[in-house]
Amino acid sequence: MVWVEIVTVLALLQYIAFAVMVGQARGKYGVSAPAVTGHEMFERYYRVQMNTLELLAVFLPALWLASRHWAPSITSTVGAVFIVGRFIYLRSYTKEPSTRGLGFGLSIGPAAILLLAGLVGAVIDGLK
Amino acid sequence: MVWVEIVTVLALLQYIAFAVMVGQARGKYGVSAPAVTGHEMFERYYRVQMNTLELLAVFLPALWLASRHWAPSITSTVGAVFIVGRFIYLRSYTKEPSTRGLGFGLSIGPAAILLLAGLVGAVIDGLK
Amino acid sequence: MVWVEIVTVLALLQYIAFAVMVGQARGKYGVSAPAVTGHEMFERYYRVQMNTLELLAVFLPALWLASRHWAPSITSTVGAVFIVGRFIYLRSYTKEPSTRGLGFGLSIGPAAILLLAGLVGAVIDGLK
Repeated sequence: MVWVEIVTVLALLQYIAFAVMVGQARGKYGVSAPAVTGHEMFERYYRVQMNTLELLAVFLPALWLASRHWAPSITSTVGAVFIVGRFIYLRSYTKEPSTRGLGFGLSIGPAAILLLAGLVGAVIDGLK
Repeated sequence: MVWVEIVTVLALLQYIAFAVMVGQARGKYGVSAPAVTGHEMFERYYRVQMNTLELLAVFLPALWLASRHWAPSITSTVGAVFIVGRFIYLRSYTKEPSTRGLGFGLSIGPAAILLLAGLVGAVIDGLK
Repeated sequence: MVWVEIVTVLALLQYIAFAVMVGQARGKYGVSAPAVTGHEMFERYYRVQMNTLELLAVFLPALWLASRHWAPSITSTVGAVFIVGRFIYLRSYTKEPSTRGLGFGLSIGPAAILLLAGLVGAVIDGLK
């Protein structure tokens, strides 16, 4: 399970990095707390962080659940794609929000695959 | 634990469905990213997704924790009520936000029950 | 693991309390759903809850992961600091947002320590 744990930590470190970028964007674009609107560029960084949070809520439980029923080497590889997808999402969203599709697909895709793998694995192992 | 795992997956699939509805509402009501305001109907769908995310953060850990100490058949049944509650919440909130109380109660209630059951179970098993 | 479970429940109960405060702030400051802006004080309570949700997404997985590799007595103590940090964050943010640094540091710090402890523990135990 070491790879599953490492992918978990890397995904969370990436998310912390996104949150730090939001903090930096507050200063750079002059958006003081508690406001979360006021400058388009700040809002892009904020949406990247929030969308990542929204997906982590699915990805992490799905990763752990799938890893209970399938080879951790496979589930952690699918999990690594999620992290790459989030990086592409950051790059494209902050450049031009309308181009965020690829990065989004490469992160919700792996999350959905792991979730369905977890469901199938749970049912198969439950029937044994 | 198969039912606990199935309830986990179903709650996450429901949450993904809510997120997809938010994406569709972006197009239907003309709210382009990164904005999350601008049309009341979009905001309702967005708040349904966000409130579900806010509750999943309690519900999933509570479901798993309670299932370590109590019969999974009982905890997964309580968990199923959460999913029904979220569906009622979606229906009522998008129709008229002020009527969201029942759906909210039927989802925070099960989450709170599972959380307290987890606490009691942890303490009882810890004292053994 | 009883202390790890108790810290988990306490952190989630605290988060529920923050959410209840947001609900009360809706009434007190006249911000009706689905709006999440309109009164500075409401926005402060809302941001406290959201920021806590953002950190719980790191803190809880990090707490559990670290506790798989290190003494639960130590990880749950670090976890208790997180809860104290969140309480300070609530107090300072609602009084004056610019003073939120200490409470933020006392909550992201423990979360980051647990996350890195989890990473180191996973690697060490993986190499055995």
